[in-house]
Amino acid sequence: MTDRYVAITGGIGGAKLALGLSKVLAADDVTFIVNTGDDFEHLGLTICPDIDTLCYTLSGLANPELGWGRADESWHFMAALDALGGETWFNLGDRDLALHVERTRRLKSGESLTAVTAHIAQALGVEHRVLPMSNDRISTVVLTGDGPLAFQHYFVRDKCAPEVTGFRFDGADRAALSAEVVQALHDDALAGVIICPSNPYVSVDPVLAVPGMRDRLRALTCPVIAISPIVGGAAIKGPTAKMMAELGVPSTAEAVAKHYRDVLDGFVVDRADAALAAAVEALGIASVTTQTVMLTLADRIDLARDSLEFLHRIK
Amino acid sequence: MTDRYVAITGGIGGAKLALGLSKVLAADDVTFIVNTGDDFEHLGLTICPDIDTLCYTLSGLANPELGWGRADESWHFMAALDALGGETWFNLGDRDLALHVERTRRLKSGESLTAVTAHIAQALGVEHRVLPMSNDRISTVVLTGDGPLAFQHYFVRDKCAPEVTGFRFDGADRAALSAEVVQALHDDALAGVIICPSNPYVSVDPVLAVPGMRDRLRALTCPVIAISPIVGGAAIKGPTAKMMAELGVPSTAEAVAKHYRDVLDGFVVDRADAALAAAVEALGIASVTTQTVMLTLADRIDLARDSLEFLHRIK
Repeated sequence: MTDRYVAITGGIGGAKLALGLSKVLAADDVTFIVNTGDDFEHLGLTICPDIDTLCYTLSGLANPELGWGRADESWHFMAALDALGGETWFNLGDRDLALHVERTRRLKSGESLTAVTAHIAQALGVEHRVLPMSNDRISTVVLTGDGPLAFQHYFVRDKCAPEVTGFRFDGADRAALSAEVVQALHDDALAGVIICPSNPYVSVDPVLAVPGMRDRLRALTCPVIAISPIVGGAAIKGPTAKMMAELGVPSTAEAVAKHYRDVLDGFVVDRADAALAAAVEALGIASVTTQTVMLTLADRIDLARDSLEFLHRIK
Repeated sequence: MTDRYVAITGGIGGAKLALGLSKVLAADDVTFIVNTGDDFEHLGLTICPDIDTLCYTLSGLANPELGWGRADESWHFMAALDALGGETWFNLGDRDLALHVERTRRLKSGESLTAVTAHIAQALGVEHRVLPMSNDRISTVVLTGDGPLAFQHYFVRDKCAPEVTGFRFDGADRAALSAEVVQALHDDALAGVIICPSNPYVSVDPVLAVPGMRDRLRALTCPVIAISPIVGGAAIKGPTAKMMAELGVPSTAEAVAKHYRDVLDGFVVDRADAALAAAVEALGIASVTTQTVMLTLADRIDLARDSLEFLHRIK
């Protein structure tokens, strides 16, 4: 029986490692469970930024400069919408738009988000399995000094400027893991779970907030590891370090390990943070030091290999 | 008091004369009442083809080759939708799409179609008033040998191939004229109503099917005229002549005059049909002969002038 893996991901950092994993593991051997807390309704469309970033990344369609949307994109829709006085704070490329329209149509016709995602991933040429964490809507709300903000309002419209005081995952208490997610985590061949270097608060915590997820991860006989999204006290991309500072948490890899402590068996830190390995181990979490910064495809593949080796070593 | 006019229009032929009227009448002096029987929901969007054709025509944005949509259009959305296995029988350009998205958003937020249309027309630079015939949804159904077909399925998807046996205007019995339409037809300065050279069955009859419309036209003290969409036994564009043949009606200008007889005071026929003028007059309808084929902007303006002169002559 081939070893199989589950990777929990959200955002751009997660998609980078997911791409690496997809290059070293066969289509059947890794399942990606994706954050949907960023999902929102906009212009009548259901938009799932993390699913889309992952699908575009795995299919080779992603825009490498922007980090979201498609390469070779045009923006005629947005320009015309602007001229009509429409809402233009969230950029939607002409080609990208087709994905949101088709997903929305399918969801309205009664298909589950899991089924719609499978269809879209397949149509884009993604071979590996991409699973939304739940078919139920869970909406990340960022609590700030300016009041609660829907995630995309905080993240895109307000450019992460408001000071964060906490988070809420609306709908999580009534949500369920999808049957496909449960199955992936119940697989007898499951050899490990990898929490990708995504934002712990807004990319990974929404996944962990789906009822049953934490218990399931704790009950696994195979190890669960995470890769630190914090390197040398800073986030590679995005507001992770800023959020940690605002929450009064040290912006360190160690603090991320502590954040995940209840589900974690191992933690991957960057070479720049080698000095923190002992502190991580003191939490009862195995650690390994490697290059976690992924600038090239080779970096993504190397980190994927290192993560898999680490899982084998600590199983 | 300046004379004011109302023009009833739908489709491309109607939009051509409307453009001519907009060039010879000030913004306050002509109101366009537009067929909405073609409106439909597609990909989650509310699409109003006749309103859009008119707004794009009056704003100078229309695509002169296609006769619908915008000039200088791109089709990246459609190509991407096709790749995703979406429904692509109805073409939506990248820029055109913005209009449907913005309209749908505004309708869902509770604005009336009349208010949304006014906003869009203004944003596009249309100075004249464009009024949907009703704020209530009326859906033209084409009865055919293959069964009833939603209008756009008949017209676009099936390219008018099925043999027509009749028409139905679903929702018309529960619909009302908008307050703005009623006001335009109650205007003391109203000097005439022009039924544009549109398809009588699927562009004008839906307007006449809104409860109160026929009575209001009959009760007017100013004249109502129509311009024949049939010239020399053929339609300038579209399926009018084909429909007439399938319905067992002669494909003649005279038959169109007869079709509108209960509301009509005058009828404009093309020079090619000068021989039919006597037959039209025998119906108790005044007639005038002129060039109705509009190839150039000058033709559109000339026909607008001729129609207005005819209205003055028979008032």
